[in-house]
Amino acid sequence: MTIDELIANIRPLDEAAMQAVRARQNRLTKPQGSLGRLEDLSVQIAGMTGQRAPQVQHKVIMVMAGDHGVTAEGVSAYPSEVTPQMVENFLNGGAAINVLARLSRARVIVVDLGVATDIASHPGFIIKKIGYGTGNIVREAAMSREQALAALTAGAEVVFDEAKHGLDILVPGDMGIGNTTPSAAIAASIFGKSAGEVVGRGTGVDEAGWQRKVRAVDAALGLHHPDPNDVIDVLAKVGGFEIGGLAGAMLAAASRRVPILLDGFISTAAALLAVKLAPGARAYMIAAHRSQERGHALMLEWLGLQPLLDLDLRLGEGSGAALALPIVEAACKLLTDMATFGEAGVSEKA
Amino acid sequence: MTIDELIANIRPLDEAAMQAVRARQNRLTKPQGSLGRLEDLSVQIAGMTGQRAPQVQHKVIMVMAGDHGVTAEGVSAYPSEVTPQMVENFLNGGAAINVLARLSRARVIVVDLGVATDIASHPGFIIKKIGYGTGNIVREAAMSREQALAALTAGAEVVFDEAKHGLDILVPGDMGIGNTTPSAAIAASIFGKSAGEVVGRGTGVDEAGWQRKVRAVDAALGLHHPDPNDVIDVLAKVGGFEIGGLAGAMLAAASRRVPILLDGFISTAAALLAVKLAPGARAYMIAAHRSQERGHALMLEWLGLQPLLDLDLRLGEGSGAALALPIVEAACKLLTDMATFGEAGVSEKA
Repeated sequence: MTIDELIANIRPLDEAAMQAVRARQNRLTKPQGSLGRLEDLSVQIAGMTGQRAPQVQHKVIMVMAGDHGVTAEGVSAYPSEVTPQMVENFLNGGAAINVLARLSRARVIVVDLGVATDIASHPGFIIKKIGYGTGNIVREAAMSREQALAALTAGAEVVFDEAKHGLDILVPGDMGIGNTTPSAAIAASIFGKSAGEVVGRGTGVDEAGWQRKVRAVDAALGLHHPDPNDVIDVLAKVGGFEIGGLAGAMLAAASRRVPILLDGFISTAAALLAVKLAPGARAYMIAAHRSQERGHALMLEWLGLQPLLDLDLRLGEGSGAALALPIVEAACKLLTDMATFGEAGVSEKA
Repeated sequence: MTIDELIANIRPLDEAAMQAVRARQNRLTKPQGSLGRLEDLSVQIAGMTGQRAPQVQHKVIMVMAGDHGVTAEGVSAYPSEVTPQMVENFLNGGAAINVLARLSRARVIVVDLGVATDIASHPGFIIKKIGYGTGNIVREAAMSREQALAALTAGAEVVFDEAKHGLDILVPGDMGIGNTTPSAAIAASIFGKSAGEVVGRGTGVDEAGWQRKVRAVDAALGLHHPDPNDVIDVLAKVGGFEIGGLAGAMLAAASRRVPILLDGFISTAAALLAVKLAPGARAYMIAAHRSQERGHALMLEWLGLQPLLDLDLRLGEGSGAALALPIVEAACKLLTDMATFGEAGVSEKA
């Protein structure tokens, strides 16, 4: 399926399912509206899935990994070798995302879109390598247009493959030393903002490191002038392989009416690309949390999404979204499993 | 054990355990501090429990129920008969708190401290009835001083009994039609604020109902002049049986180094009483969420607690706290189960 076909398959929310869920919420044994945003969430998920009793059983955390040539500019607190090391950590179950996945009973899929080294095969590890790290965006394009399209397609393919094993909600996650820099470049380009407004501390650079990041983003935008209305141009010139994969995965999920639980800065940068390509994809997105990374709040505002959590997280991997999974699951279970006033013999409001 | 003995048994946080957890957090495979408030939470729970690897396995949601004479003033959107009806709903597993408890693998205990009717015995239902509903605080004291002390003691006893079956975290919950009114009276008394600043819409009264609530709280405070520095006086004159039980349960939990996950307006009103009695109990409290009920934010501010969630909830039952249980559990599991840099062979920050 081409990206254009994917986009054409994204449908509006199912209003009938939403209406049915609103009506049921008002019959459940609680004051109307007392479950606040959980009620809204259940309505939204009904609209996405088209189900009046939506289930959140098959939860898939998809961590996409890639390396970034821009690390040569000293933009990250960690060396690039940490990307494959953390991929190994994911595969061995020792990272934050693994702990959270076990608690939320989610499965973790790790996808190599562009790690600079080869990583041995492993169950739950999918190799869709588009390149061995991106070009340094300060000096050259991150990738070719062909590679950008290939990254989107690869991400979509992984979702379609995983859907065969059950997929009720997609949690896109990321791993890639240096990837807050291209994510900031994408945001600056799409928002028409200066680098200083969207660049943050990433994994924890100091003030000098932050200034290097700002200069790198400014330099990349000044060199390439990516066209904010041509997503492939933005992704190719200042993006990343895993960011493209994540955007493609989101388009695929939206085309299958699968809710997308957005994590932090990188996932949301990918969401910007997905929504620029297919505005209808936005309706399939739930913002799990507001990251501590500068620029994330702006991204959520642009998307019109209010986050569920605000806990000063800035880890990535999909961790903030994994933490919000139980809230999303609770919203659906409350809808389906609570007794109604009639069933429980409870008197209604006078 | 008397209440005074309970209070004397509340100890400060264990600084050595907190220090050990801070050190471990910095060795886990993530940028230092990137798990934000989850890291702080793990440190705090280590201090409460005295454990360097705290577990959140035995989760107990303790819903305390009571009726309120002040409902005669038209302060609630629901009739008093809903209190026993909802208790039956809890015992049959059909309420929001039951759904959330199943998701969080918590056990639910329902305690009758003062429901106006007798409810048949049932597994998981504990009868500690201090009275058949409180007096109408607009005309008379809610209860006698002896009853207030008995409510505190009864709540503590339930915690000590439950601790025999394992108790790693206490989630106090409430059920009692009309109970936002005494809770607001408690807050107004302790804060020295006017009723209008702390009275909210409860289960959903309209503007006229809200004005009746404000007048009821003003009238009760004007009639009784409860002494904010004599907690038993406040509880007896304008409180509730379940509110006293919750305060006693919190003191018992703190005396056993058990973390307390505070729910909304009623639980937090009980927390005000517990902290006025024993300032050291505050360190054992975690604010699960900020309720939509007016006055709850003021209560949290007075306690110096920052809530984990802010989802416009206003249901009570312990539901907001039950929703936050997975976050608290995640904070501890991340601490204990993540790999360290050394274990995973991941390079540290340059």
